[in-house]
Formats: sequence, structure tokens, C-alpha cells
Amino acid sequence: MRLRLDLGYDGSDFHGWAKQPELRTVHGVLDEALAVALRLPEPPGLTVAGRTDAGVHARGQVVHSDVPQTAWVENGERLLYRLTGLLPLDVRVRQVEPAPAGFDARFSATSRRYVYRLCDDPVGVDPIRRSDVVWSRRQLDVDAMNDAAAALLGEHDFASFCRWREGASTVRTLRAFGWQRTNEGTIEATVVADAFCHNMVRSIVGACVAVGESRRPPAWVGDVLREVERSSAVLVMPPHGLTLEEVTYPPDDELAERAQAARRFRG
Amino acid sequence: MRLRLDLGYDGSDFHGWAKQPELRTVHGVLDEALAVALRLPEPPGLTVAGRTDAGVHARGQVVHSDVPQTAWVENGERLLYRLTGLLPLDVRVRQVEPAPAGFDARFSATSRRYVYRLCDDPVGVDPIRRSDVVWSRRQLDVDAMNDAAAALLGEHDFASFCRWREGASTVRTLRAFGWQRTNEGTIEATVVADAFCHNMVRSIVGACVAVGESRRPPAWVGDVLREVERSSAVLVMPPHGLTLEEVTYPPDDELAERAQAARRFRG
Repeated sequence: MRLRLDLGYDGSDFHGWAKQPELRTVHGVLDEALAVALRLPEPPGLTVAGRTDAGVHARGQVVHSDVPQTAWVENGERLLYRLTGLLPLDVRVRQVEPAPAGFDARFSATSRRYVYRLCDDPVGVDPIRRSDVVWSRRQLDVDAMNDAAAALLGEHDFASFCRWREGASTVRTLRAFGWQRTNEGTIEATVVADAFCHNMVRSIVGACVAVGESRRPPAWVGDVLREVERSSAVLVMPPHGLTLEEVTYPPDDELAERAQAARRFRG
Repeated sequence: MRLRLDLGYDGSDFHGWAKQPELRTVHGVLDEALAVALRLPEPPGLTVAGRTDAGVHARGQVVHSDVPQTAWVENGERLLYRLTGLLPLDVRVRQVEPAPAGFDARFSATSRRYVYRLCDDPVGVDPIRRSDVVWSRRQLDVDAMNDAAAALLGEHDFASFCRWREGASTVRTLRAFGWQRTNEGTIEATVVADAFCHNMVRSIVGACVAVGESRRPPAWVGDVLREVERSSAVLVMPPHGLTLEEVTYPPDDELAERAQAARRFRG
């Protein structure tokens, strides 16, 4: 049977999501904890909504795991409580429940929302926030960054901003991309799309930062998009400013259909 | 001549404020950086508004330092820029300026504002906030905590909540002490007083938490206060939930008078 887990993590001390031998990854730590909590001989395996790179954080990550029905029946109610005790404090599972029919954490998702956090104070980032806010030593022009971001909205081939992968489409629909100064002294980009290619959020943020620092005019970002080819002029921003905040899913009766369509489309 | 420095730090990797041989302290790190930035043969020495314990953070800490006039004249304009480069990212000096006549970072201050942050979610603290938010495994009754806190407002002898020190008064004026749930899922206490004795904030917070967990009735906190003697029933809360947010000073023409009065009173 399939379980849905909702979780958050501080990416600082992880080598990203994906399991790697000998390295501490969120997948590895969570999969092991799940095996212990469910008394399974082997980690059950996990499928994640947003595979995050080393150093990237999450608040609203979603995962599914297929486990023996008996393990759930025998341990279900205690599972969340046990994971709370077993997991290190830099990963927290917030909810565990049987997934509805047709649910796939990755392919059923209709959107992912990321936030990228910067601070352009010349004396640096509030020390308590330095693990999830990136310091920009130059002043940023947020209006210009919003002008630049607007050119990327909608359905486009984002190949200019992605690491190329054989047989995978780089067409995505960017639903929201906007910058604002917060009253905490940070500058935040909110980025929402159906899905993202590898490096895409950190690349489109980097392109806007080049505009915000006046190294490029706002129209340049749209020009890069239209080249439809990975651009070496675009800086990939550091991972620790990025947090996966939310993943959304359609109503239960559309989960299977959505998963099928996304699998077909993204290859 | 006297300089005023405004700074913040993440207390996690410091053994508190006060200089100690062989240990990394905020005083030690800042004093060394100031010597390098001002080309002084020795660290100039620092006086701090709120001496924080190991693990306690600060956003609005204030310090003064007496330095040779020539050092300021020769380096003044570049001082903040140099400190920004010299200091590690867990300490940030936000401003440096010549202090007005009569200014004493410690004794001229009219109030200190601290915030203590808790989270009573049964699954734990948002991993990204775990260095400045303390996890309470029990649900907290914020209304009861506010009832308890109200009994401490005003001028009292806070000996029940302080570590005793020969010849020092434990009379303080608590101007504000209130609890609230934030929309970030934390519970915050804001505490303002003219000054605090050692351990006082973490002790009065601990007393309220005992009430919030229903281990004590709200009236108990007032009872402890009236005992005027260090109580072993009061739990001193962990340091990492505590942040010094702000120190306030009177108008420039009252600085010297205020310093004299506070020095006389607090001994």
C-alpha cells in the first residue's frame, strides 16, 4: 500500500535529496527511519515531489512510499510518533497517511512553489538567517528584477536555464515569478510552475539578480529564454537561498489521470 | 574617544559574550577584529549592553569601545567596511559611530527587549528555525501563560528568578511580558525591562512554560516572585530560544545622568 508523507528539512548538512552511498542525504535518512519505524528488513524506497540539490531546504516536500499492508496495519498509528523520535532535528515529517488511489508524489503534482531569499544589506545577512538567506554584496533593483521575471511567465522551453538531459522535455509552465522586499530586510522571489527542470529555479533567479545589479538590462532575461540553449552567461545561484515551500495536487479523482499525463509529457 | 557599535550574532557557535581564554566568544572575536580594523597593537576592550550567555542570540546588541582618537581619524570611514570583511558571518556589525558625550552602552540603556521563541507542534520545530526556536513537546496554553506573566509586571525584587550575586540588587522593572502565537507556527514571549539579572529571562519564561503545560496554576508564578529567594522549582529554559532584539537609550542630554543613576542602583 502507498503512504504519503509531508516533510521539511534544513538542507545545510545533507548532500541533497537523492540517495548516494556513503553520503548523508534526505532520502537515505528518511528511508532508513521508515524501515526502523515500520519494522521492515529493508528501506521501502521513496518517490519525491521535488528532488532538491545539496544545500536546498524544504518546508512543504511530499514523498510517497510503497510499504507492505501488514506493516501499516500493525504500526500505522504510531508511525508519525516514531519518526518524530527517530529522525534527526534537521528533518521533520509533519504528516503520514495512506495515499488516495492513483496518487504519485512526483507525477500527480500540479505545481511546486519555491522561495529564493536574498539580502542586499551592505553589512550582510542577519546571522540567525544566514543558512537560508544569500547575501548579495550589491544593492538590488527589485522593480527591474520584476520586469525581467515577467518575461518568463507562461509556457516556454526553458532549455536556456536548465541542465540538459537526454530525452527529457524542458518545456514548463511558469505560473508565478515575482520579487518583493519583506519587512524582515530580505528580498524574496516566489516561483511557481507545474514542475521545474534541474537547476531551473536557481538559474532564473541568477538571471534576475544580474538585472537587479544593473549588469544586464531587464529585457536580457527574455532574450536568453528565446535562445533555447543553455547559456553560460546565466549564473546559477547558491543552493542555500532556495526552499521548496509547497507542492499541490488535484482532487483525488484526477490524481491518476494527472500522473499519466505528466509522465507522458516529461518523459 | 568612545565608539558605539550596533551588532547581531547567532549564539550557536559562541561560548557566550564574555571573553574567556581559549574559547570562542563574541567579545573575543569582535575585540580582535576591531584591533585589526583600527591597526591597534592590542584589542581596545568592549562594554556591552546585554551580556548574553552561551547559545543566546542577538539582533540589536549595543557595545561601546574606547579607542585612540587617531585610530578613528585615520580609519573611521573604512571601519564598518573592514569589520564586514573581517568578521565571521555569525557576527555582523550593522553600524559604527562616535558615541555622544556621556554614552555608556551598559549603564545609559533605559530598556532591553528580548524575545523567547517556542514551538509546541508535536512533530517538532521547522528544521530551518531550529537554532532559534525551542521545541516544547507538550501543548502550551498561551492564555494561561499570559495570566501568569501579568503577575510579574512592574517593579519587583526578582531574586526568585535570578542567580544571586554579592552586592548586586535584584530589583528590576518589568515593563512588558506577553505571549503570542505567530503565523509562523511559533509561540513568542516579548520581555522588556530596564535591565535583567543573570538568568532572569530564561527563568521567568520557564515559570510560564510550567503554567502553559498545566503543571502549575497561573497564580503560582506570582507566588514564586513573592518568595524573593532563588527557587529550584523554576526551570531555566535552554539558551537558543532567546534573542536580544533591542536596547534603547534616552535622548543624548540624559545619557550621563542615566548612566550614573543605573550604576548607583545596580551596584
